[in-house]
Amino acid sequence: MINVRTDLAVEANEDYKKVHKREIDGVIINEEEGESAKITEVKITNQEGSVKLGKPIGNYITIDMPELTMYDGEIMDDVSEIVGKYIRKLVDMDSEKTGLVVGLGNRQVTPDALGPKVTDSIMVTRHLKEVMPEAIDDDVRPVCTIAPGVLGITGIETVEIIKALVEKIHPDFVICIDALASRKIQRVNRSIQISDTGISPGAGVGNHRLEINENSLGVKVIAIGVPTVVHAATIANDSIDLVIDNLASYANKDSEFYKLLTKIDKEEKSILIKEILNPFIGDLIVTPKEVDYVIDSLAKIIAVGINIAIQPNLDLEEINKFTN
Amino acid sequence: MINVRTDLAVEANEDYKKVHKREIDGVIINEEEGESAKITEVKITNQEGSVKLGKPIGNYITIDMPELTMYDGEIMDDVSEIVGKYIRKLVDMDSEKTGLVVGLGNRQVTPDALGPKVTDSIMVTRHLKEVMPEAIDDDVRPVCTIAPGVLGITGIETVEIIKALVEKIHPDFVICIDALASRKIQRVNRSIQISDTGISPGAGVGNHRLEINENSLGVKVIAIGVPTVVHAATIANDSIDLVIDNLASYANKDSEFYKLLTKIDKEEKSILIKEILNPFIGDLIVTPKEVDYVIDSLAKIIAVGINIAIQPNLDLEEINKFTN
Amino acid sequence: MINVRTDLAVEANEDYKKVHKREIDGVIINEEEGESAKITEVKITNQEGSVKLGKPIGNYITIDMPELTMYDGEIMDDVSEIVGKYIRKLVDMDSEKTGLVVGLGNRQVTPDALGPKVTDSIMVTRHLKEVMPEAIDDDVRPVCTIAPGVLGITGIETVEIIKALVEKIHPDFVICIDALASRKIQRVNRSIQISDTGISPGAGVGNHRLEINENSLGVKVIAIGVPTVVHAATIANDSIDLVIDNLASYANKDSEFYKLLTKIDKEEKSILIKEILNPFIGDLIVTPKEVDYVIDSLAKIIAVGINIAIQPNLDLEEINKFTN
Amino acid sequence: MINVRTDLAVEANEDYKKVHKREIDGVIINEEEGESAKITEVKITNQEGSVKLGKPIGNYITIDMPELTMYDGEIMDDVSEIVGKYIRKLVDMDSEKTGLVVGLGNRQVTPDALGPKVTDSIMVTRHLKEVMPEAIDDDVRPVCTIAPGVLGITGIETVEIIKALVEKIHPDFVICIDALASRKIQRVNRSIQISDTGISPGAGVGNHRLEINENSLGVKVIAIGVPTVVHAATIANDSIDLVIDNLASYANKDSEFYKLLTKIDKEEKSILIKEILNPFIGDLIVTPKEVDYVIDSLAKIIAVGINIAIQPNLDLEEINKFTN
Repeated sequence: MINVRTDLAVEANEDYKKVHKREIDGVIINEEEGESAKITEVKITNQEGSVKLGKPIGNYITIDMPELTMYDGEIMDDVSEIVGKYIRKLVDMDSEKTGLVVGLGNRQVTPDALGPKVTDSIMVTRHLKEVMPEAIDDDVRPVCTIAPGVLGITGIETVEIIKALVEKIHPDFVICIDALASRKIQRVNRSIQISDTGISPGAGVGNHRLEINENSLGVKVIAIGVPTVVHAATIANDSIDLVIDNLASYANKDSEFYKLLTKIDKEEKSILIKEILNPFIGDLIVTPKEVDYVIDSLAKIIAVGINIAIQPNLDLEEINKFTN
Repeated sequence: MINVRTDLAVEANEDYKKVHKREIDGVIINEEEGESAKITEVKITNQEGSVKLGKPIGNYITIDMPELTMYDGEIMDDVSEIVGKYIRKLVDMDSEKTGLVVGLGNRQVTPDALGPKVTDSIMVTRHLKEVMPEAIDDDVRPVCTIAPGVLGITGIETVEIIKALVEKIHPDFVICIDALASRKIQRVNRSIQISDTGISPGAGVGNHRLEINENSLGVKVIAIGVPTVVHAATIANDSIDLVIDNLASYANKDSEFYKLLTKIDKEEKSILIKEILNPFIGDLIVTPKEVDYVIDSLAKIIAVGINIAIQPNLDLEEINKFTN
Repeated sequence: MINVRTDLAVEANEDYKKVHKREIDGVIINEEEGESAKITEVKITNQEGSVKLGKPIGNYITIDMPELTMYDGEIMDDVSEIVGKYIRKLVDMDSEKTGLVVGLGNRQVTPDALGPKVTDSIMVTRHLKEVMPEAIDDDVRPVCTIAPGVLGITGIETVEIIKALVEKIHPDFVICIDALASRKIQRVNRSIQISDTGISPGAGVGNHRLEINENSLGVKVIAIGVPTVVHAATIANDSIDLVIDNLASYANKDSEFYKLLTKIDKEEKSILIKEILNPFIGDLIVTPKEVDYVIDSLAKIIAVGINIAIQPNLDLEEINKFTN
Repeated sequence: MINVRTDLAVEANEDYKKVHKREIDGVIINEEEGESAKITEVKITNQEGSVKLGKPIGNYITIDMPELTMYDGEIMDDVSEIVGKYIRKLVDMDSEKTGLVVGLGNRQVTPDALGPKVTDSIMVTRHLKEVMPEAIDDDVRPVCTIAPGVLGITGIETVEIIKALVEKIHPDFVICIDALASRKIQRVNRSIQISDTGISPGAGVGNHRLEINENSLGVKVIAIGVPTVVHAATIANDSIDLVIDNLASYANKDSEFYKLLTKIDKEEKSILIKEILNPFIGDLIVTPKEVDYVIDSLAKIIAVGINIAIQPNLDLEEINKFTN
């Protein structure tokens, strides 16, 4: 079966509601319309909510940015402030605590390079605190980063590398940044999701071996993700659904035709999608043409946001100065 | 209307035959199955062929490479030799003639960077022939290159830049390389089209102002293109067609249902596609995830092919040595 | 003879004064110490000044930035405003005039990529003014850009490409940006020179064929340059001079020793330098290790400055918004 | 004191012999002139040799390549075979053993990117052996890679990251690749050093905390290095020495002048060098202008060499096929 999946809790919830026409017990939604962004908090509170959305119990904040704000310094700063604020809501950071910022993804593949690019712009201070503490203000917190690469490049599961490092340097919290897949073209490069449940590749499928979360690492894990692609299979799937919906709306609900339309199941759709995308299926992605430009802006917004969260004693100007 | 278009003559011909179930008068096809590649020559001989395929009268050679040959030096060399051979079939190059190789496209956008990357690997000799002719063998031909950038970056129509340069330096022939869009996922990064009709953005639409061909430049123009993307609209369109075809095959041909299916026209499909791809439409592209790697290999194959065509007095080892 | 040369008029003047201990007739210096930068205007007014500084008659403004300001948005904006102001002092830009911004240098060689990177961030408007004038404010001026590449890559003299384009599209003024060589390590990536004399490779040597200036192009030419490297030969030469100066200061001025020291001439120094730098000589450059980071900031400062100069009706925030 | 240091044992030995005019007890030299390269083995056998060369006891093989062979596939393959052969001389690799290849250095700084670029081209197989052993030949050995970044970027000592990973995944041997500094311009991008003593930043200074070797990691460590830069201080130092040597050769050995020349000590030279290079000193590097091109070829030569060493059951064509 083709998995037309989303990494965003807010989309999983929208999809569920669209199909089942009702709210889920165990999922609390809170929306807030800000000046520079719309913020949606999805709180999954019990097992039912977790199963129905296919995501672990916990908090998911989605920041939806307005269109075309990429080069607008003021809105970028606003969104960074929002990112910083919500990170601090999810993790306690007192000044003694050491943070490890992990850039997931493949630096060489543009839409997957978000994580490594964010780490490039984090204010790295742990080594200064250790080697020359007198050169740095006491209220600057110790931060370190790693961009471990992807399994196909390293031959090592990413979680193994992170776990090894966490066990060696004992950070108090971990912030992971990753490029996500969206269900909706509209969210590509426009939404930032912050959660306290870590990264669960294939969540819901129960592949616990690969989870990067508090459970596997033993320290608090914040995950920040931006959908940078839609799988081509999603486009194909949506096209098929739309055509079926449209045809069904014309049909007499007692006709053979209507029965035919409504009995097209996932299995049959999968076969159609495979035929369309053959021979690529898995790795065929849809991106806006200008993705190479946009990723840099997104990485900067998120890096400034993380710097704001971790270094509350620095003002925005100082942080921008250190965030290249 | 959404334009689900192809830049490849061989695909335009396949599409025509699929829809109309017959050959076109004015289009001659010749196929040859080689060891490292399949070669299809499409010769458009008259106005009827031109109109039906939406391409100018002339010769179009498509080289279809086997799967996953990107890192295989031997097959790469074989394909380069084929490219070189067919360029020489289309343009007369005696040793006195100066060639201008033009890399079209945007260097900053990975799937569009093919042209500029090819020019990076062309053996550039014109300045040596002019400034220190004694340093270079007499039988090396003068070659120069330009990667003029795209309209959105320069503010100047590409053809204006090329025309200005052709009028200034008077090359005897021009070879243009461009990244194309394909109708079929299977051809992405696997086909090389060589033609003697130049580049006609929006061909068939009659926008003669922007054509880069013998007519506009006054010298022979060879165009080399590789499909590096499929438009997302194509995927959506194919999905819709496939679902309709499938449903139609089940239906009684006299039923209301069948009539409904067969009366879905281009206009209605366009509306559906726009709904799926909103808000991006035009610039949403589908690429294999590993496109960043593949473009380099393709650029090298084509550059070596051009070097072989222009410098017949050098052997392949010498050419590879100068092609970084 | 090794040419330990500088592209900066202000350095040529400093060197002359150091050697000859006097001012030059025909060179007027004006210094101004601003908050974010020191500005030195060198005006070469006659042939004597031109010969002695090895630069054409005209105006040269050097903006020396403070240390380590690269990531400070406010100082970057200040310097951009200064750049914009002095460009406007040198060229008349009324709203009807079309500007062509030329990025000289090799995009693939980091310290030489400044020019092409500046063009990437120019607000390009000429095509909008031509194709959809209603979509753009009347007081936005038409601007276009080109990054023509370097002779070794294209096989075409850069001035030929620019001349061809100027003759085709008829801009009213040309702004060229180029990476320069400095005599002094201290100026690397810290000084911006703006002049109205164009670019004269090997100026003073009289190679008029290659000059990019009002004479060769027929329109006003502004040149903007930043020293991004020092030639290794300069370091070697300075080391030799310094050791000789030091030894001489100890010596009795009547001694054989002193005579020996003072008779080391350019020819002998050249031989020593060649011995040190063998086998590279010409292409061995000295750069700070972090050059890859710094060039991006410099390109942005200059691009914003040019945008300010050309688009006086837009405010800084709008300009920053369009300058990625 | 300015440290005019070399990372190459063969240069340290040349320097020692030049100054002291004699061989060192405890250093055995073996030279071999091959067709595509000259090979020098330096074996440091005892403490005296170690102290005098400032390098740990062990084996150092230097492969000096001929000039300008970068784009010659055949010579590249020859050098790769030599690299592979000498790696196998230094470490026992039977088919059960897992190798970890570590790319040291900063991917963003061109001359320092060698290590990360080599890891990009290593045949990574460990995950395949673990997850789908049936998909891969039994005689392919398990290999994994990491490019951990540099202290200034991560805030974590590189050796800490590698140690954490070695303790987690238990490789049987580690191969580290690093960009080095040379004493001699002639060796830049032309020499490859392979040693079994690991990487000792500041070796001789006794900073054991930072060593990456068998001692610190508990498994065999092979270090492969290529000098990609010369420190600017080295150029300045050499210039000063050369001028002093030249002056001294003219002088009467009893004169005041000669005494003055010969009493210029390291301290005084340091002051001169600082004056020349002010304000940069430490991070000012000298590179050939075309460094951006050359690093890719070097990375490929070394990666193919490592692949040959680790995968003796594959032939060169198969290895080239997998080495992008």
